Amino acid sequence: MQTTKIRRRGLMLVLSSPSGAGKTSISRHLLELDENLEMSVSATTRPRRPGEVNGRDYFFVDVTVFREMVDGRQLLEHAKVFDHYYGSPRGPIEDALAIGRDILFDIDWQGTQQLAEMARSDLVTVFILPPSTSELDRRLRARALDSEDVVASRMAKAMDEISHYPEYDYIIVNDDLDQSIANVQSILTSERLRRERQLGLTDFVKGLRQGQ
Amino acid sequence: MQTTKIRRRGLMLVLSSPSGAGKTSISRHLLELDENLEMSVSATTRPRRPGEVNGRDYFFVDVTVFREMVDGRQLLEHAKVFDHYYGSPRGPIEDALAIGRDILFDIDWQGTQQLAEMARSDLVTVFILPPSTSELDRRLRARALDSEDVVASRMAKAMDEISHYPEYDYIIVNDDLDQSIANVQSILTSERLRRERQLGLTDFVKGLRQGQ
Repeated sequence: MQTTKIRRRGLMLVLSSPSGAGKTSISRHLLELDENLEMSVSATTRPRRPGEVNGRDYFFVDVTVFREMVDGRQLLEHAKVFDHYYGSPRGPIEDALAIGRDILFDIDWQGTQQLAEMARSDLVTVFILPPSTSELDRRLRARALDSEDVVASRMAKAMDEISHYPEYDYIIVNDDLDQSIANVQSILTSERLRRERQLGLTDFVKGLRQGQ
Repeated sequence: MQTTKIRRRGLMLVLSSPSGAGKTSISRHLLELDENLEMSVSATTRPRRPGEVNGRDYFFVDVTVFREMVDGRQLLEHAKVFDHYYGSPRGPIEDALAIGRDILFDIDWQGTQQLAEMARSDLVTVFILPPSTSELDRRLRARALDSEDVVASRMAKAMDEISHYPEYDYIIVNDDLDQSIANVQSILTSERLRRERQLGLTDFVKGLRQGQ
């Protein structure tokens, strides 16, 4: 029997959702369950906190370096959050994709739009919707004992995020965490089987036709 | 909590492969395992055999009716095999898709090309490759005690079929039957979660934004 020489190009899996829809739990479980999936490591200008490791939690850089990365198109997406910059460096991502590793991105619609412009064919985008607003409200409140104003502001941001669901490939209503995790796993399995992600198919089929 | 009013449009799952690559086994198991999936019922001009039920195994029609169906664009694909015509009637398929049922098609590349022209957005196409030619040869021989000529002719037809793999969305190398079945199930799960197949998302999100 011929040795299967088919390799696979990795993919970039984007999970977006309003805060409180369960995205963080889904991501954590996915990373635990799938050895071929790793979290994207961002570059940031924010100071390193105790316990954080450069290159594992973030690539810590100063503003000058960050701006050079932006100008050199070395970031697939970037954003300013409060006073600090965050971005996804192209180099490590390209290296991972080339050896068939898949990268998970936990980013909002603005980051997703930038990624789509830079690397659409490697991108698989999933939007997680909450089952109801009351459930979302409950989850946003459950986070901390915040004032009504803070909760209202979070809800407004959530609604802005939700308004971008039509830009995503797949939609999951997170009624049930286990089911949602299984659904994202099916999406991963399925997208890995897409023809254009399987490298070496031409040679493999040539081998079949030559009677190997 | 708001009642989830999201419905789903069914999809048309096409499995193609050279004869002997395991497609029939995969189809049979899929139909057993997935209650929402049903086999497409073809119209045919071939005579009914004992035990066959009209409307379940085939829609049995005469040549005049079949030609009317072709002329009236009532068939999503059709072909002549030896002396008889076979085709997929549009009506029952449309009815099934509209209520969220998924239809399995076991057709070759020519049928798939016709389906793609008629209904691309409902179509999910999977090509099953054998792991090796020796394996394919073994499977083709295992079917019956046929002459070398018959086996060679089957192999030539298999090679012609294989040459069309680049026209399919997903490629599965059938090394292991159970794994291949699980892979097609993941493709089904994943494709059902595609945004454009989920009907009523706009109203659902509108409900979320109105605080339901």
